[in-house]
Amino acid sequence: MFLGVRFFASDNYATIHPKILQALEAANVGHASAYGADPWSEKLQQKIKKLFGPRAEAFPVFNGTGANVVSLLALTKSYEAILCSDVSHIHVDECGAPEKIIGVKLIDISSQNGKLNPERILSHTLNYGNEHQVQGKVLSLTQSTEKGTLYSLDELRALKEFCLQKKIKVHMDGARFANAVAAMNVSPQEIVEAGGVDMLSLGGTKNGLMLGELVVSFNEEASSQMKFYRKQAMQLSSKMRYISAQFCEYLENDLWIENAKHANAMAGLLASELSSVSSVELSEKPEVNAVFARIPKAMIEPLQRDFPFYVWDELIHEGSDCSEVRWMCSFDTQEEDVLSFVKKLKSF
Amino acid sequence: MFLGVRFFASDNYATIHPKILQALEAANVGHASAYGADPWSEKLQQKIKKLFGPRAEAFPVFNGTGANVVSLLALTKSYEAILCSDVSHIHVDECGAPEKIIGVKLIDISSQNGKLNPERILSHTLNYGNEHQVQGKVLSLTQSTEKGTLYSLDELRALKEFCLQKKIKVHMDGARFANAVAAMNVSPQEIVEAGGVDMLSLGGTKNGLMLGELVVSFNEEASSQMKFYRKQAMQLSSKMRYISAQFCEYLENDLWIENAKHANAMAGLLASELSSVSSVELSEKPEVNAVFARIPKAMIEPLQRDFPFYVWDELIHEGSDCSEVRWMCSFDTQEEDVLSFVKKLKSF
Amino acid sequence: MFLGVRFFASDNYATIHPKILQALEAANVGHASAYGADPWSEKLQQKIKKLFGPRAEAFPVFNGTGANVVSLLALTKSYEAILCSDVSHIHVDECGAPEKIIGVKLIDISSQNGKLNPERILSHTLNYGNEHQVQGKVLSLTQSTEKGTLYSLDELRALKEFCLQKKIKVHMDGARFANAVAAMNVSPQEIVEAGGVDMLSLGGTKNGLMLGELVVSFNEEASSQMKFYRKQAMQLSSKMRYISAQFCEYLENDLWIENAKHANAMAGLLASELSSVSSVELSEKPEVNAVFARIPKAMIEPLQRDFPFYVWDELIHEGSDCSEVRWMCSFDTQEEDVLSFVKKLKSF
Amino acid sequence: MFLGVRFFASDNYATIHPKILQALEAANVGHASAYGADPWSEKLQQKIKKLFGPRAEAFPVFNGTGANVVSLLALTKSYEAILCSDVSHIHVDECGAPEKIIGVKLIDISSQNGKLNPERILSHTLNYGNEHQVQGKVLSLTQSTEKGTLYSLDELRALKEFCLQKKIKVHMDGARFANAVAAMNVSPQEIVEAGGVDMLSLGGTKNGLMLGELVVSFNEEASSQMKFYRKQAMQLSSKMRYISAQFCEYLENDLWIENAKHANAMAGLLASELSSVSSVELSEKPEVNAVFARIPKAMIEPLQRDFPFYVWDELIHEGSDCSEVRWMCSFDTQEEDVLSFVKKLKSF
Repeated sequence: MFLGVRFFASDNYATIHPKILQALEAANVGHASAYGADPWSEKLQQKIKKLFGPRAEAFPVFNGTGANVVSLLALTKSYEAILCSDVSHIHVDECGAPEKIIGVKLIDISSQNGKLNPERILSHTLNYGNEHQVQGKVLSLTQSTEKGTLYSLDELRALKEFCLQKKIKVHMDGARFANAVAAMNVSPQEIVEAGGVDMLSLGGTKNGLMLGELVVSFNEEASSQMKFYRKQAMQLSSKMRYISAQFCEYLENDLWIENAKHANAMAGLLASELSSVSSVELSEKPEVNAVFARIPKAMIEPLQRDFPFYVWDELIHEGSDCSEVRWMCSFDTQEEDVLSFVKKLKSF
Repeated sequence: MFLGVRFFASDNYATIHPKILQALEAANVGHASAYGADPWSEKLQQKIKKLFGPRAEAFPVFNGTGANVVSLLALTKSYEAILCSDVSHIHVDECGAPEKIIGVKLIDISSQNGKLNPERILSHTLNYGNEHQVQGKVLSLTQSTEKGTLYSLDELRALKEFCLQKKIKVHMDGARFANAVAAMNVSPQEIVEAGGVDMLSLGGTKNGLMLGELVVSFNEEASSQMKFYRKQAMQLSSKMRYISAQFCEYLENDLWIENAKHANAMAGLLASELSSVSSVELSEKPEVNAVFARIPKAMIEPLQRDFPFYVWDELIHEGSDCSEVRWMCSFDTQEEDVLSFVKKLKSF
Repeated sequence: MFLGVRFFASDNYATIHPKILQALEAANVGHASAYGADPWSEKLQQKIKKLFGPRAEAFPVFNGTGANVVSLLALTKSYEAILCSDVSHIHVDECGAPEKIIGVKLIDISSQNGKLNPERILSHTLNYGNEHQVQGKVLSLTQSTEKGTLYSLDELRALKEFCLQKKIKVHMDGARFANAVAAMNVSPQEIVEAGGVDMLSLGGTKNGLMLGELVVSFNEEASSQMKFYRKQAMQLSSKMRYISAQFCEYLENDLWIENAKHANAMAGLLASELSSVSSVELSEKPEVNAVFARIPKAMIEPLQRDFPFYVWDELIHEGSDCSEVRWMCSFDTQEEDVLSFVKKLKSF
Repeated sequence: MFLGVRFFASDNYATIHPKILQALEAANVGHASAYGADPWSEKLQQKIKKLFGPRAEAFPVFNGTGANVVSLLALTKSYEAILCSDVSHIHVDECGAPEKIIGVKLIDISSQNGKLNPERILSHTLNYGNEHQVQGKVLSLTQSTEKGTLYSLDELRALKEFCLQKKIKVHMDGARFANAVAAMNVSPQEIVEAGGVDMLSLGGTKNGLMLGELVVSFNEEASSQMKFYRKQAMQLSSKMRYISAQFCEYLENDLWIENAKHANAMAGLLASELSSVSSVELSEKPEVNAVFARIPKAMIEPLQRDFPFYVWDELIHEGSDCSEVRWMCSFDTQEEDVLSFVKKLKSF
């Protein structure tokens, strides 16, 4: 269908990074204990502790929804609520998995540039003790956000302080955490500490893996129960070495950061090239590997024929002639891909 | 840890079959639409329809628990019950995933040689219409069974007739379905038709895949909803081509049957060799790739040091000096593995 | 505590209507079959069919949350969503019961005067077929609304037409359905038909019962399963005659409508008297038995000491000096209660 | 239907005790704060603390299933299992409510005379730490049991010691707790302490109330969350005074114990009279208000025409000509009822 070429639809249209594939092959030797009692999984634990500090414990899972749901399952009681942004993946794009699997309410909070802040959250924390209403005691942040933006360390620290005061636990959806690390020029641990993160969904699939995500727990009580929740939530891989081996390579020599840096740079190039395309107006400042733009509705279908991508928001509530679209770059996007896409855009 | 050698712990200790790995590599070309809209996933649909008839629809998922839970989620209302054997994987080894994820009661029924029959099920179907009790309207069978045995086509037909009478839907846990097909010398479709199967969990991971299982639906109403249940149950792979490509190769030139035949043969060899080991008594007649045996408790730990395996039943309820253990063969088990294991056994 | 007097806090602060209490006493004769197989429950069925037509089937339950959850449980698949207003009781005041018990997502939609219309709902129905997102296939309306307003028959018909087009099922939270009937001067059946209601939660507790609500099902498929869902959702009363007998009396000689009419009239009186209180500004036009008003925050606590009531909205998002409060009238509110309350208000 | 007379079908066929009804009427005065902030509910708390000690906290709910489910919801994590007897109400007669509402597995354990002991439970506690299997960390006992028998204090103490060792929490289904207290001639607190009970479902409906049960929590962590779980599980009564007032009267002057004593005595009389009926064979020794007996299948339907009762076990697994039936006595059973029933039995 779309073989041998690259698009801007999603970073999950991309391939497996060649080094990751080699690591998979290298792990294919003889029998290994199942369910994580293998050398690759043990090595992965060490790598995670080195990256995130000794409290960190890694739990490989299959996909992003799984990582988010297992994390939140371990943090949340059924009468509590998960506070999240109105554009968060858990709220919009997981087909109600948190509600069905955890059995808990999500409270979606109006966001700006994909981000929340204490002021926006405050009014959802005034009912503590009122048994008629769910208690907002878990906050889920996305870093980098669904709108391709970033929480700065200061923004995270403000949220952390608020959450400490209100005894709110913090989950971070890091499906594109690598892109955040790469863009912010800080260490992974700095982000986690700034946000007071209890549980991190650390993405792999969108950044070069075949499939695999990590739940990284910084919360001791949750860590001690995670293996049960992961199994029950159908996220325990039997031949786990093949996920762990991918992650070991991913974290080796900063491959994950390099991949993300490249994807970010390609989005930067795309954004910069778009400045000369009159029909396109950026709708978010691109800080990582996504470009959000408003383009005329009439352009969309013809453009998608050659370059598949997603419409983010039809903007029907505004009665606009434009829709907001999303263009993603990935570790394997090439300069030539960007240039030929921009050329096509200019042809309309 | 246990690299380069092979054991009898589980078929999920095994490697990826070399051809499957090659297929993974071959699929690693350019961008492909995510979530199943790729050529490999389309090709897989065709293969499944060819194997199982035009009604069959395939839904790739991550693991066996996922395949079972998604299947049963689509078949069962919350006030219904899932009838299953007391040794079934869904009842014993899935950490309560069906109860938590589906929110439904499992009724475990006493089995013989891992199998159920209409007589055993009957008393659980006498309460239809009584609102105080769950309604046993879904039957989950395992083929081949958790005890390494097989339902014959006639046994399946008897169950099907019973279920038709009682309006019971049928799920088949086929984590080792290939081993059944290989051993029974019938077509996959014959088994499915004999059992009147609505939904089949078709295993891949234990028979040569890196990871991946298929839900094969024969129930139209369920088929039309499966994509939603799969997504919600966190079993939708974004880069699905890498699961579909494995399965395409798996089903090509009967590789899956060849793999299973070999594993079955190795279990046959093991069973036959064991007849001369006095401390070992077979506890089930091995029909596929598992050997169940009673061995003295004292032998277990020393033996596990060199050859890891699972104790199936400590037999504490019988106050026995023996425990029942399980030895599994896989597609990559070699004759030399069997012989050296038997040699070790004889040394006790 | 607040004995012998009456307030404006909630219609569930009220007593049991004397006739209802007499009916309870009259039912206290000898043994009666449990779980609804008693003469009172049978008589209730007949009354409901007479009121709502032959398709209607009544299922007594304990409370309003129970009525709503059981109704919605019978109508909704887990990957579907329940569309509801942002002020709906199921969304705001049921401690996440729908999410926990049904395992389903609620989509709260911005409302005006407590009401939805097709335009407001439309954008939540554009994703049908997209497996990443819940499918909004059940609409829950409240009549009379949580803001003390009413959907007119025409407004209901517009919603019904929209829902028929989109294949959306309709639940009506009628905790105060009697107040709507009383105010609109139409028959109960006219409201239900105008809205194309599949399932009605018909309130009793807030309008003179000791406790008890009815789920009235107009949806055949749901009706046939309701007894199981009611039992499983812990809403099946064993000595059901004591709920049914209350409802029989409630529906006899239009007692329920008379009670509601009186409560509505008292709210009308209150609203009219308030027009001369300068510190109070009505925030909704009172159409049934509730008066919503903005009053200075400083007045609230002193006033509550003598007349307990609920603050509906602190209006902190507006940075206002006022809060919105709710004053409810009930079947036992007296003119003197209203006048002494208004007198107190004027004293500030 | 069966008005003015009394049967042996169930104690929930009975009436409201006249004193309880008077208490209901007496509570019908003026407005009272909803949801338990009323004087009757406060008085009830004091009574419960006096009966069960200062740690005890009472939470009125609607029915027995509600009491059990809310109790177990507060005690159990989703990957844990509830250990219970194979005849327990939660396992057999609650339509899967625990599985659906809590989302947890029940492990039903073979019982004798309706009772469990440490030996029977032991084999279900050997898998702690194994993430593939649910962790049996909550035990639900029924006192008096579903078979009309009693755990002695010593039997309870043995279970408590076992549970302390294994860190298992204890729930007691006390739908007929009053009958146990009455029969054992001990204080309520002695039973609770002997069993190390964390959470008690204390029955009212079957022993003279119109409807209402109490969850009595002895577990501080659970107590602090109970109000949320009760609300979410749809068991919070708005006009709670009418449940609390019933319970206040119930506990006043040992009315509950007197009612239970009478019911127990009537069952004793029935059992003793039955010794002269040759077609009837007692199948359990009656210790409280239930008589279990085997009678010829042919007798059942004709007998039920005049005296409705439940068949407990059709005994089809034994191929017997008899079935096991259950005859319950209640607080309002009269000697004449027993004698006329026995007379009828003798007529066959």
